[in-house]
Amino acid sequence: MRILILGGDGYLGWPTAMYLARRGHEVAVMDNYFRRRACTELNCEPLMPVPNLHHRAELWQAVSGDRIQVLIGDICDYQFLSRVFREFGPDTVVHYAEQPSAPYSMMSREAAIFTLTNNLVSTCNLIHAVAEFVPDCHIVKLGTMGVYGTPNIDIEEGYLEVEHKGRRHKFLYPKAPGSLYHLTKAQDGDMLYFYCRMWDIRVTDLNQGPVYGVQTDESAQEDRLAPIFNYDDIFGTVLNRFIVQAVAGFPLTVYGNGGQTRGYLNIKDTMACIELALLNPPEAGKYRVLNQFVETFTVSELAERVQAAGRELGLPVRVKSIPNPRREAEAHYYNPANTSLLSMGLKPHYLTTEVLVGMLDNVREYQEAINSAHIMPDIKWN
Amino acid sequence: MRILILGGDGYLGWPTAMYLARRGHEVAVMDNYFRRRACTELNCEPLMPVPNLHHRAELWQAVSGDRIQVLIGDICDYQFLSRVFREFGPDTVVHYAEQPSAPYSMMSREAAIFTLTNNLVSTCNLIHAVAEFVPDCHIVKLGTMGVYGTPNIDIEEGYLEVEHKGRRHKFLYPKAPGSLYHLTKAQDGDMLYFYCRMWDIRVTDLNQGPVYGVQTDESAQEDRLAPIFNYDDIFGTVLNRFIVQAVAGFPLTVYGNGGQTRGYLNIKDTMACIELALLNPPEAGKYRVLNQFVETFTVSELAERVQAAGRELGLPVRVKSIPNPRREAEAHYYNPANTSLLSMGLKPHYLTTEVLVGMLDNVREYQEAINSAHIMPDIKWN
Repeated sequence: MRILILGGDGYLGWPTAMYLARRGHEVAVMDNYFRRRACTELNCEPLMPVPNLHHRAELWQAVSGDRIQVLIGDICDYQFLSRVFREFGPDTVVHYAEQPSAPYSMMSREAAIFTLTNNLVSTCNLIHAVAEFVPDCHIVKLGTMGVYGTPNIDIEEGYLEVEHKGRRHKFLYPKAPGSLYHLTKAQDGDMLYFYCRMWDIRVTDLNQGPVYGVQTDESAQEDRLAPIFNYDDIFGTVLNRFIVQAVAGFPLTVYGNGGQTRGYLNIKDTMACIELALLNPPEAGKYRVLNQFVETFTVSELAERVQAAGRELGLPVRVKSIPNPRREAEAHYYNPANTSLLSMGLKPHYLTTEVLVGMLDNVREYQEAINSAHIMPDIKWN
Repeated sequence: MRILILGGDGYLGWPTAMYLARRGHEVAVMDNYFRRRACTELNCEPLMPVPNLHHRAELWQAVSGDRIQVLIGDICDYQFLSRVFREFGPDTVVHYAEQPSAPYSMMSREAAIFTLTNNLVSTCNLIHAVAEFVPDCHIVKLGTMGVYGTPNIDIEEGYLEVEHKGRRHKFLYPKAPGSLYHLTKAQDGDMLYFYCRMWDIRVTDLNQGPVYGVQTDESAQEDRLAPIFNYDDIFGTVLNRFIVQAVAGFPLTVYGNGGQTRGYLNIKDTMACIELALLNPPEAGKYRVLNQFVETFTVSELAERVQAAGRELGLPVRVKSIPNPRREAEAHYYNPANTSLLSMGLKPHYLTTEVLVGMLDNVREYQEAINSAHIMPDIKWN
């Protein structure tokens, strides 16, 4: 299969490229290096040094023999995107090319406008490129479980059958995102759903929970192939941050009473979910939504598990409750469905003490590189 | 009340300015003249000549003695918008400043991207300006009934209480818009709802049905104060188009079997609804949604009523079914609620034969000016 990965430089983009190349797919990665520039400008560089994409593709070819094509440019630039579509002609596009940080999107008006325009113009351009050049192409877009918020009823996978005053209708599941970033992911989903209905495009939206993990099987073969690993309060995800806080001797920063429940998954499961989605495309005109996570935890539970793993390594880990910079429920009902990917064959990696100890060990190798500037949360949401 | 009208040059913007000025409010209108440029470029000029805003403000002052402040600029330009907010300090903003045409938004990728960025960046800038300069200000945004699509259950006003597996939750009413333009109106509503929850802004979203009418009480006082009246297949709304088709001797163009049902209102009722909304603001943090229409018709029923009104004037009116360029249900359930504005005191103008005869008479005065280029639908939706 010919697979174009948009946002191929990111935490998930590059590992996905190696994973799919290893399984015999023809892979091209595209990126505009936004994340690198932002990390430099905001002084939140990733933990491990990350060679540029051309260099990583060379390193990977040396390790595996697989060729990954590298295309540097912006999908908001339709001329560039058109050339890529004409020349590469993908069967599947994996769309990771969005500004992925909730705190970033709430940092300033400028960051909000960038997030809004980048995330929506990129998706709109992608839809037009598919319709123009490869109408049968399957778009696999990374969404987020965060679009649902925390409703008081079960979260189904994408759609909700409603009975109201004796009549029935099936709606796209209503969204209540908690940051401007999450809002744009609800909006791009609505846009994909719209063009599925109008133009019969073929889309899978993977509403993913927070991902954790330092390495994949592919990246473990060579240090310089590691995913971009952020642990700061802008681009870092909660468990990855806790691991670095634990190693650096900082307290784990739990927002408020830590009762916020979310669905989590290992980065290795993200890779598997992407391949399951692209090997099983939906029919034309269908907007398929899959909830992508394997187990749910409260933030406090995550902190306790990291503490327990620290004990195994003789690492004392403290937990500290700090005022929540977000406006979100700290105790709420949460029962999201996630059966579709499991029934397609996903074999989950669960968050065991062994996995956490492995992450702590990985991070300890880079202990000297930890920059304490962004370890404690600092971003204001208003 | 100090009222800033964004999109003050448009079909509804200018009549709203006169209406509110007449009722003692202090009014400023702002516009970037997008609509005028687009009408010139696409050769779909309005039926009556429309003086520029400065000129219209002078004409209105001569007629009424009311001063309307004119500000020419783009609300996507935050520097300009900030200056306006600092200097004018509105109590209420009426936000009409969006690209309002469904066919325009489906015309080309460029038009889609313009619609998307204009409609969302304008709203995002507005929210930030309110939060920065006048946090208590009430935003009255014009929405559209088109965001709901045609679900098989009743359309409530903004929210839907759902019972699912024995639990209950109140959601924002799920949307299924039928054009990219309508999608952006769902997206800007979601954005306003989000910032209400996060920043306690104060918003009314008026989900309006298609508006008809040639004159308001204010515009009738001087020919050159008429609303921008489009009758083309891009900016014209269905009933206004039928009136011009009838006068010009063209058949009324009904899409498919004409069973599409929508909620309509007279432009005079739009004025009244806006004032009701701004005199009765919601509390801070509340995203209030009001459905703004007074009666529902199928497209075929509209055509029949225009035929009947034509007979009164001895005007033979034909009706022609043409292939539907849109992808929409041509027969469907439609039962939208509209009690809120009525209970706030709206006194509807209904679509009587007298009203239609009046519109036909108004348009006949400009019969010579009708440009037949855009009378028949021509825009392709894919």
